[in-house]
Amino acid sequence: MSVLPKSVENVINEFSKLPGVGPKSASRMTYHYLRSPNKDATKLGQSLIEMDEKTKFCTSCFNVTDEDICNICSSHLRDHSTICVVEEPLDVVAFENSGIYNGLYFVLGGVISPAEGITASELRFKELEERVKSIVNESEKKVELIVATNPSLEGEATAAYIQDIFSILLKEGKIHVSRLAMGLPTGADLEYADRLTLKRALEGRRDI
Amino acid sequence: MSVLPKSVENVINEFSKLPGVGPKSASRMTYHYLRSPNKDATKLGQSLIEMDEKTKFCTSCFNVTDEDICNICSSHLRDHSTICVVEEPLDVVAFENSGIYNGLYFVLGGVISPAEGITASELRFKELEERVKSIVNESEKKVELIVATNPSLEGEATAAYIQDIFSILLKEGKIHVSRLAMGLPTGADLEYADRLTLKRALEGRRDI
Repeated sequence: MSVLPKSVENVINEFSKLPGVGPKSASRMTYHYLRSPNKDATKLGQSLIEMDEKTKFCTSCFNVTDEDICNICSSHLRDHSTICVVEEPLDVVAFENSGIYNGLYFVLGGVISPAEGITASELRFKELEERVKSIVNESEKKVELIVATNPSLEGEATAAYIQDIFSILLKEGKIHVSRLAMGLPTGADLEYADRLTLKRALEGRRDI
Repeated sequence: MSVLPKSVENVINEFSKLPGVGPKSASRMTYHYLRSPNKDATKLGQSLIEMDEKTKFCTSCFNVTDEDICNICSSHLRDHSTICVVEEPLDVVAFENSGIYNGLYFVLGGVISPAEGITASELRFKELEERVKSIVNESEKKVELIVATNPSLEGEATAAYIQDIFSILLKEGKIHVSRLAMGLPTGADLEYADRLTLKRALEGRRDI
């Protein structure tokens, strides 16, 4: 027989499913709500349910949105001939918060990862192809595709796969595919940089 | 204009209210749910709302329960002449998980803390007094009250306050009030023990 009421156990179980949250933290989070007098648990509960109900993927870039077309894709202030391909919606947030990019995005939904059993068919390569083709047809400018997958082995493999998909359009000179620069991050210490980062930094060296 | 849909922002805000959860962790938790395909956010949401609806305080010991009288207070296998006074429901869980205690509990709802502005009137001293008196009237044995507030300054002050409340019953020999032993915890290193712990350990030394 458990000491805790079933309804409390349920909340602890659900919190425990979060990455990085163990049973102890889950209990602490749950007890925070039991102590709170102003129905905070209900507030979080309702906002979670509302999020599940309202959010969907933008039909154009597959970013998380509560409309059919997200407000980045529907904005006329954006450069519609540039697409930045990212893994996850959080990557879009990172770019948007930095305020350095004014094109559109395309959210792949992950990277090809044989180790985790994620094959190309589970990612949105088909949708990316269609999207780029339709932009190429509409745009008068050369379309630029910036591949912004993470600088990991999987990210690299996925970038190579994307280049492959667009080999014909590339040959026809209709698109330009680039990859985010790799090298030392600001504030990094050369002494502690890993081999691959140093290699990329050396390969990508620029004249000063 | 925020990049994120309002419904997603709401969830991040609610998560940020949890103790020890910053905006970054709150975003990570929220995005975990956006990524999860099986409506996990709704599951957590519903369990939170259900917890708020179903849980209440046991009218006898003020532990969290989903019945009027919790299953500890209503159990006939428990020693009804011993009451362990604790600060929070989580303390009950700690005792119950250890399996070392077979009496009843009484949850005070905190400790007297002038620093945090918590006065005696906000805690359940009145209810504790009534509860103990009714047990004294019913019980043929001497009633034992174990004060298990935390070994902090506030916990100590609260324990002293409780002893004060029951001074008459104590004089009449109808109850016995004790406090959890203080000293070195198992596995502790004497070298790192703080002054107060060492003092208590010395004061409470026992013959071997």
